[in-house]
Amino acid sequence: MSKRIAILTGGGDCPGLNAVIRGVVKAATGRGWEVIGIEDGFDGFLHPEKCRPLGIEEVRGILPRGGTILGTTNRGNPFSFPIMREGKLETVDVSDEVISRIDHLGLAGLVVVGGDGSLKIALELMRRGVPIVGVPKTIDNDLLETDVTFGYNTAVETATDALDKLHSTAESHHRVMVLEVMGRYAGWIALESGMAGGADVILIPEIPYDIEKVYAAITARCKRGRRFSVVVVAEGALPKGGGRVVKEAAGGRSVVERLGGVGEAFSNELKGFLEMDIRVTVLGHLQRGGSPSTFDRCLGSRFGVKAVELIETGAFGQMACLKGRHITSVAIEDAVRSLNLIDPAGELVRHAEALGIMLGR
Amino acid sequence: MSKRIAILTGGGDCPGLNAVIRGVVKAATGRGWEVIGIEDGFDGFLHPEKCRPLGIEEVRGILPRGGTILGTTNRGNPFSFPIMREGKLETVDVSDEVISRIDHLGLAGLVVVGGDGSLKIALELMRRGVPIVGVPKTIDNDLLETDVTFGYNTAVETATDALDKLHSTAESHHRVMVLEVMGRYAGWIALESGMAGGADVILIPEIPYDIEKVYAAITARCKRGRRFSVVVVAEGALPKGGGRVVKEAAGGRSVVERLGGVGEAFSNELKGFLEMDIRVTVLGHLQRGGSPSTFDRCLGSRFGVKAVELIETGAFGQMACLKGRHITSVAIEDAVRSLNLIDPAGELVRHAEALGIMLGR
Amino acid sequence: MSKRIAILTGGGDCPGLNAVIRGVVKAATGRGWEVIGIEDGFDGFLHPEKCRPLGIEEVRGILPRGGTILGTTNRGNPFSFPIMREGKLETVDVSDEVISRIDHLGLAGLVVVGGDGSLKIALELMRRGVPIVGVPKTIDNDLLETDVTFGYNTAVETATDALDKLHSTAESHHRVMVLEVMGRYAGWIALESGMAGGADVILIPEIPYDIEKVYAAITARCKRGRRFSVVVVAEGALPKGGGRVVKEAAGGRSVVERLGGVGEAFSNELKGFLEMDIRVTVLGHLQRGGSPSTFDRCLGSRFGVKAVELIETGAFGQMACLKGRHITSVAIEDAVRSLNLIDPAGELVRHAEALGIMLGR
Amino acid sequence: MSKRIAILTGGGDCPGLNAVIRGVVKAATGRGWEVIGIEDGFDGFLHPEKCRPLGIEEVRGILPRGGTILGTTNRGNPFSFPIMREGKLETVDVSDEVISRIDHLGLAGLVVVGGDGSLKIALELMRRGVPIVGVPKTIDNDLLETDVTFGYNTAVETATDALDKLHSTAESHHRVMVLEVMGRYAGWIALESGMAGGADVILIPEIPYDIEKVYAAITARCKRGRRFSVVVVAEGALPKGGGRVVKEAAGGRSVVERLGGVGEAFSNELKGFLEMDIRVTVLGHLQRGGSPSTFDRCLGSRFGVKAVELIETGAFGQMACLKGRHITSVAIEDAVRSLNLIDPAGELVRHAEALGIMLGR
Repeated sequence: MSKRIAILTGGGDCPGLNAVIRGVVKAATGRGWEVIGIEDGFDGFLHPEKCRPLGIEEVRGILPRGGTILGTTNRGNPFSFPIMREGKLETVDVSDEVISRIDHLGLAGLVVVGGDGSLKIALELMRRGVPIVGVPKTIDNDLLETDVTFGYNTAVETATDALDKLHSTAESHHRVMVLEVMGRYAGWIALESGMAGGADVILIPEIPYDIEKVYAAITARCKRGRRFSVVVVAEGALPKGGGRVVKEAAGGRSVVERLGGVGEAFSNELKGFLEMDIRVTVLGHLQRGGSPSTFDRCLGSRFGVKAVELIETGAFGQMACLKGRHITSVAIEDAVRSLNLIDPAGELVRHAEALGIMLGR
Repeated sequence: MSKRIAILTGGGDCPGLNAVIRGVVKAATGRGWEVIGIEDGFDGFLHPEKCRPLGIEEVRGILPRGGTILGTTNRGNPFSFPIMREGKLETVDVSDEVISRIDHLGLAGLVVVGGDGSLKIALELMRRGVPIVGVPKTIDNDLLETDVTFGYNTAVETATDALDKLHSTAESHHRVMVLEVMGRYAGWIALESGMAGGADVILIPEIPYDIEKVYAAITARCKRGRRFSVVVVAEGALPKGGGRVVKEAAGGRSVVERLGGVGEAFSNELKGFLEMDIRVTVLGHLQRGGSPSTFDRCLGSRFGVKAVELIETGAFGQMACLKGRHITSVAIEDAVRSLNLIDPAGELVRHAEALGIMLGR
Repeated sequence: MSKRIAILTGGGDCPGLNAVIRGVVKAATGRGWEVIGIEDGFDGFLHPEKCRPLGIEEVRGILPRGGTILGTTNRGNPFSFPIMREGKLETVDVSDEVISRIDHLGLAGLVVVGGDGSLKIALELMRRGVPIVGVPKTIDNDLLETDVTFGYNTAVETATDALDKLHSTAESHHRVMVLEVMGRYAGWIALESGMAGGADVILIPEIPYDIEKVYAAITARCKRGRRFSVVVVAEGALPKGGGRVVKEAAGGRSVVERLGGVGEAFSNELKGFLEMDIRVTVLGHLQRGGSPSTFDRCLGSRFGVKAVELIETGAFGQMACLKGRHITSVAIEDAVRSLNLIDPAGELVRHAEALGIMLGR
Repeated sequence: MSKRIAILTGGGDCPGLNAVIRGVVKAATGRGWEVIGIEDGFDGFLHPEKCRPLGIEEVRGILPRGGTILGTTNRGNPFSFPIMREGKLETVDVSDEVISRIDHLGLAGLVVVGGDGSLKIALELMRRGVPIVGVPKTIDNDLLETDVTFGYNTAVETATDALDKLHSTAESHHRVMVLEVMGRYAGWIALESGMAGGADVILIPEIPYDIEKVYAAITARCKRGRRFSVVVVAEGALPKGGGRVVKEAAGGRSVVERLGGVGEAFSNELKGFLEMDIRVTVLGHLQRGGSPSTFDRCLGSRFGVKAVELIETGAFGQMACLKGRHITSVAIEDAVRSLNLIDPAGELVRHAEALGIMLGR
């Protein structure tokens, strides 16, 4: 039976978004369905010109490209939509209008590709009757209920490549090179890129660091004739005892407030102890861009196909996910109830320490 | 308690071997153990100068490098060792000598990093009393009991990169570009790189191809204005009905004999039907070399740590493996009893076909 | 004054073609001119639907992409155009028709981006009154009168990357790894990639090789404990004395007929002497594809701008070229009168030999 | 005749240093000479253990690696050597001691690989009788008398790769992405990477920028439907009229004092005008590291060989350089008398503007 479905991408950039879009379009048109691409996230529903048909022709050649052909925005929450009123920024609830537009489009299903934020909006809309399926998206890999998300592998490759570059300079110039990578609450990018890039010290949000122990580790290396160190710092890493701001998130999740410039801050702390030159590099947006890796192209494509299969079987409220070698699905609700953090007592951390990496403790 | 262990690498090249060696050395020296590196596979035991201590210094800087610092060989089976006698090549059983050398070294454990062949030798030696743990190695990803093996991800990246390069030429010159990739019995490299590289046709050993259907698919593309096609062919792909030589392997496994030049052969078959230019590229050894990807560096490093943990707990006869996010272990025996092949009726194949890829059937 | 110009791309694929097209379109539309893109080389003039306007919108995003958005063909010589007549392939002169179409388009200039072959056709058309300017294109870098051509740098990067990959396998497995690269008459790709990739032996068309000396060099390495060698062979390399077929080209140029499979042939010769394993990889079309390097994107873009400047100043019959840091121009006639070959007694060869590289002599 | 020569590397990191060292060692040992590697720049002469023989074995495998196996330092000026005296940092002239050590080593020649600073020290030492030849090294490409220096091409590749990554995010998120690259006095990296990476605005030290015109250019793009812009800013770029501090360098060269954080500063200025999101990425040390590009490996290797040839012919005081396709030499004195800046009225700038790039004016 012919159907009309729609797809939108929300939140920050992530390599593999186009693979998902292409996967949805290929799998849907293969079934004889029609696909509407909604531009700029949920915001697109408010602008008819931003709801355009997506066919095979529109997704041609997009698989190896970063970004999203649908565009996106961080400001598209229909339940808290930003508007300017009398020169002041306010937020209004435009969800009724969004839902009426969705009804008007006659959608058999809406694929929401997004992280924590977008998926929670999706859940709200589903409670109001919109037939939604989810595709998880987080560069930090901090979403529960999936082994990994697309984009993460590319980000780790970018960070590892940066470490490869910094390594030779560190060694030639007898310096401490600090690389600040993404990871506000979860240190996956820092830990995996650090393991792959041969880092000596890795600081992650899950393990508050003891600056004196970091200093001792770097100094001990010097005494062994290794007059340099490479340090990876997740943007959410924090010193032991200090500066940690915890807020109670909706649904009871405790999150750590980001304090910013953590690489610089750490470097300044360390300078008090150390006589070596220290240099900080902030990788920033480079981690979100670029052609997705092979792994992310495949994972994104398969998530796209899975989303269509979920609509086909009426499994609304479900989200595509990876478990081992299999693409399966879980309730969106279960995926967003908390964050996927590194277990400080777990296997990955144990392996990193067995490799001689200092984790700040 | 201080221990002396040894490590050797066997069989074909595979990105990540050095990560395993480094992981073993780091984890073992961290425990105060001594590590002996055996050069050129099992062959090294026969030459005392090829059994050398491996310390932290010896594994410095090897993480990002391809190949293996221990060297390897395809000719080191101690149960069937090649020698020249009176100008003729014969094989002899030198296993007694190898075992006596191993005894002489006083090893608490021997880490064998290898594929099907090396692991079977390892099992034989274990039956003769050698305390062995395994680390799986196969570029083709055709080993059972692990989600994936190190090196495979790098090989798929190399193949996908080649497809990205061939794509633009195919399109600009209105050609059929054929890429022959590794995969004698299992089509994993072909299928994943083809999915990631936007291939139009993928031929794998698990699905005998019907040349007339391939021709029809390429022609249908032309009629839709796509005057080019990109085809990935696994080296073990075979036409339907023809040429398939099955031999009964030891232990009852049926394997397909490789016929060679499959890309060229396929291309010649296709030429009979098609008026377009066809060009074949054989990727060959490029897939086995190069700096390992981030994924493979991490996986190899963790397999190395796991091997040391297996020796520590006395889990001989076990092999490190990946299941979901976890490094765990299985009996070597279970891993080599058959091959990890793609299921022609499975999820991955279904997803590939949903993406519009023609699989030869 | 507003003008209408056209651009076509001829011959084999070459990274940077899109940069040239974009450069022409940007520079021309900046002057208020109109640009017509001719698809599939000179052949496009015979099909009105293949002559389409190219504006800023059409060249958006093409800079980093391989191939040519205009398509190309090796069969578009209007003076010797292939047709099927009564089941037989014949060639006819369709130049009158091509010239009449060009007249009909009212072109103030035609930019021909091509190699030796396309530029000679361009010269013929110019003698018949077509206002032509040239942009040199040869992956082999064998065109006279320009320091270098776009695409060549990318090809050398691809070949060097392949050598980096083969190196570790050669060393780990104690093998001779042979890489066959492009270069029918000129060995630039082989020599530069070999220098950059740390090759031990490089065989180029300009220096007939002595197989016994190559054998001696590889053997001498073994005696020094280097039980492997990496060999780069240009596709036009030939053994001393044997197999060389010289033909007299139009205009008195002597060219060497390609014999094919030179890497394989060399390997077979060498096998007669050597006991080591030898493996051959043919890089083939991978050298012509992929995203152009930074150097080639800049050079291609600037050649495109220069072509427009040449039309503006009425410098027809001229070809853009690079001399030191400057983009300048020369007569097309001078560029195609012979080939840019490596001087066996020159500085580059002397440097390669000083680096310890064996050049077959 | 057998000779003993030495080599040192000075100043900041630069991809290709190891290629130079390898080139010197290969060319010298090929002549039967002995090479001494001096560690950590001129400082190494003061520590006998830092003067070690360099043979073929020591340079094995270093060609594709970043950094320098000899180490380097920014603090090794023998005429103004930093020491701690009574808790205070002072500088002393240790040149007599350095020269006496050099005499003691009996050097037939000393190869100084360095930039402006190191080469000026080299000149001073030469006036005191040390037989010096130079190899130019500057990541910024701001040295006179050579078409280009090694390392620069790799840096431009890294910057272009970053632009490729930022581009898709800019477009998907409708943002202004600002990339700050190296180039204190000369904008080569910014201009070439910007041209290759499809930047919309490029700000270089040689052309003071008018922020209102930059704003106008970005706004005009928005009006044409291009709701994003990619901006490259050299670290030495400065606004028109403001903040420029000129100091008179020794030898009469006028230099611009760096003010720091130029990307951030520019972004803040722009924010005053623009409603779009702006994101700044500082590429920093990533530009100095990594495996050198093919071009830089070849150029570095050939510079190394040339340095040996200069010593052989007694051409002291000369520096290797590239002119067109040829490696030749110039007086070090001529190379350091001023800086190689981009001509705001020259061909390269004209080409960039013809490509539609806004240069701040």
